[in-house]
Amino acid sequence: MAPELHPDVAHLAFLLGTWRGEGRGEYPTIDDFTYTEESTYGHVGKPFLAYSQKTKDPAGLPLHAEVGYLRPVGSDRVELVLAHPPGITEIQAGTIEGQRLRLQTTTVGLAPTAKDVRSLTRSIDVADGLMHYVIEMAAVGQDLQFHLEATLHHAD
Amino acid sequence: MAPELHPDVAHLAFLLGTWRGEGRGEYPTIDDFTYTEESTYGHVGKPFLAYSQKTKDPAGLPLHAEVGYLRPVGSDRVELVLAHPPGITEIQAGTIEGQRLRLQTTTVGLAPTAKDVRSLTRSIDVADGLMHYVIEMAAVGQDLQFHLEATLHHAD
Repeated sequence: MAPELHPDVAHLAFLLGTWRGEGRGEYPTIDDFTYTEESTYGHVGKPFLAYSQKTKDPAGLPLHAEVGYLRPVGSDRVELVLAHPPGITEIQAGTIEGQRLRLQTTTVGLAPTAKDVRSLTRSIDVADGLMHYVIEMAAVGQDLQFHLEATLHHAD
Repeated sequence: MAPELHPDVAHLAFLLGTWRGEGRGEYPTIDDFTYTEESTYGHVGKPFLAYSQKTKDPAGLPLHAEVGYLRPVGSDRVELVLAHPPGITEIQAGTIEGQRLRLQTTTVGLAPTAKDVRSLTRSIDVADGLMHYVIEMAAVGQDLQFHLEATLHHAD
């Protein structure tokens, strides 16, 4: 039985469920690429959402993944904590306004063997059943710049 | 179809699957407590394991959760990156010897509204189909000390 949504995350309910779609990425140090993505936002009745994402390359092989939690801070701010397989943790903070989130890195944690990622921004917009996000990244000596964007539809 | 296990994580295969059992916790700032736990270690054919954990109180209500990835560094060292719902990220590094892991915090990341956690240690031992772990924590002004332990059986 699904627990009742905690009232502190009621304004994030538009994110709940599974989202699938396609994206593309680029960065000065790598070749451009495209991917398919499945993201889920769930809850257990507590005042946060659980988030997980997996992407695959056009051949269907796993590409990136990330997992974490989205926390509301009052009605207009949010915090996102993430772990990434390449040994990176990410804390972001920002704003939520309607179905629009704007997040910026406050802290990046790097495991001893992780490559250098300094900061990221995330913009997430949901409208008409579509989620569009854009991620900028400063890493491996490069300035903050466009890295990823995808458009996902609400799958369930 | 399950992908083939990446050879770099072959020595971590004893962790794969779902683990269930019971644990207990204590800390100077809170009442002692007990919990049930389900943890999973999975893989997608890449050189890391995906880890997730959920605990519930004796009444069956969700208590803690954490998600992240376990990365081998060669054959005898590991890195663990985690996100926690209270706005905390955790990077740990340590050793693996047989079915025994010993990990210590290298970096804790705190979201702007998270409470203060400074460091943690994790010891995980698997023997005879049982996983036993002990977690020490330094948080909210307290020194590093025992916080949690649990014994889990391999559920599938």
